[in-house]
Amino acid sequence: MKLQLALDMLSTQQALEVAEAAGDSVDIIEIGTPLIKHEGINVLKEIRSKFPNHEILVDLKSMDVGQYEADFCFENGADIVSVLGVADDATIQGTITSAKAHGKKVLVDLINVEDKVERAKSSLAWGADYVGIHSGIDQQNRGETPLNDLKNLSEKASVPTAVAGGISLNTVDSIVDCQPEIVVVGGAITGAANAAEVAEEFKAKLSA
Amino acid sequence: MKLQLALDMLSTQQALEVAEAAGDSVDIIEIGTPLIKHEGINVLKEIRSKFPNHEILVDLKSMDVGQYEADFCFENGADIVSVLGVADDATIQGTITSAKAHGKKVLVDLINVEDKVERAKSSLAWGADYVGIHSGIDQQNRGETPLNDLKNLSEKASVPTAVAGGISLNTVDSIVDCQPEIVVVGGAITGAANAAEVAEEFKAKLSA
Repeated sequence: MKLQLALDMLSTQQALEVAEAAGDSVDIIEIGTPLIKHEGINVLKEIRSKFPNHEILVDLKSMDVGQYEADFCFENGADIVSVLGVADDATIQGTITSAKAHGKKVLVDLINVEDKVERAKSSLAWGADYVGIHSGIDQQNRGETPLNDLKNLSEKASVPTAVAGGISLNTVDSIVDCQPEIVVVGGAITGAANAAEVAEEFKAKLSA
Repeated sequence: MKLQLALDMLSTQQALEVAEAAGDSVDIIEIGTPLIKHEGINVLKEIRSKFPNHEILVDLKSMDVGQYEADFCFENGADIVSVLGVADDATIQGTITSAKAHGKKVLVDLINVEDKVERAKSSLAWGADYVGIHSGIDQQNRGETPLNDLKNLSEKASVPTAVAGGISLNTVDSIVDCQPEIVVVGGAITGAANAAEVAEEFKAKLSA
């Protein structure tokens, strides 16, 4: 099980500071959607150069021109990019085409997808590497969590999952029980005064 | 009827060159989704400083944290931002909250929304300024156009629309017949050797 650190601040400098503090405990560094929109491709280049041995995911959440957007991320050091499950089939397929051409990976984010099982199966059949079970921050604010969706999907389909959405040290155990491939943690680490220690605790829970 | 120029290249320099060539004929300069993801907020600052009298739309296509993403665009000179109609209600509402706080505007992009009439009405009721009828580039590649969706929506609801999706000098007349508020043109201008002249021809068709 891999630990992914989601960086959703707006500044490259702040992102680098948290990544440096927590990096030893995390497998995948995620450049969050607001961060890539605010800082552009330079934040990817900076993180790539500072973290040559980590996997880097760019949370593009592409809704159109999947191949075009994925291409420039893979060309600048990304290992994984995301595309929205609510996007057109051709957009998801375009992202996958780009990944295959670069020997890299795709995560299809199932946020707001109605039939998650069907979309997960199609995405995997097209060649996606992961599906993301994801309660958005705007959804977490009214109490939603990704756990039920994760359980439901795990029961009905055998797909490699990445799980995201307000995961804390208090809630991570029940997520780990479902054995996803990737556990995504954002605010619980980036908002902690002692990011390094908290990341280490998460890593321990994933390895237990 | 306003003419919006969609800039979907990846370089600020190229975007500025096309905007300078075509600017006199367009009302709204759109920083496209791939452009903001590649160049970050700097492309907005550059275009704002070079075009103080144009409206600027940032095609954020937010899928989560609507308010957070809109805030940094409005704070850096955007007049309009987009949010996805397939996003959670709270995401759309968050974008609108940001716009109201800054005295700016929101476009809800109906790309891939199943019940466009219902989503358009809800969005307007929450305070959105426009709904976007939008065939993505990945959809245009298999022959889809926004015209049928535009006609259908215009018949069933009275909403201010922005129309986008492969609009060319050959197809713009039937779009104009539907009287949208905004006609969005991208490749037909940005891909033209004589961008200034083509933009002028579009402007003439919208004013006819």
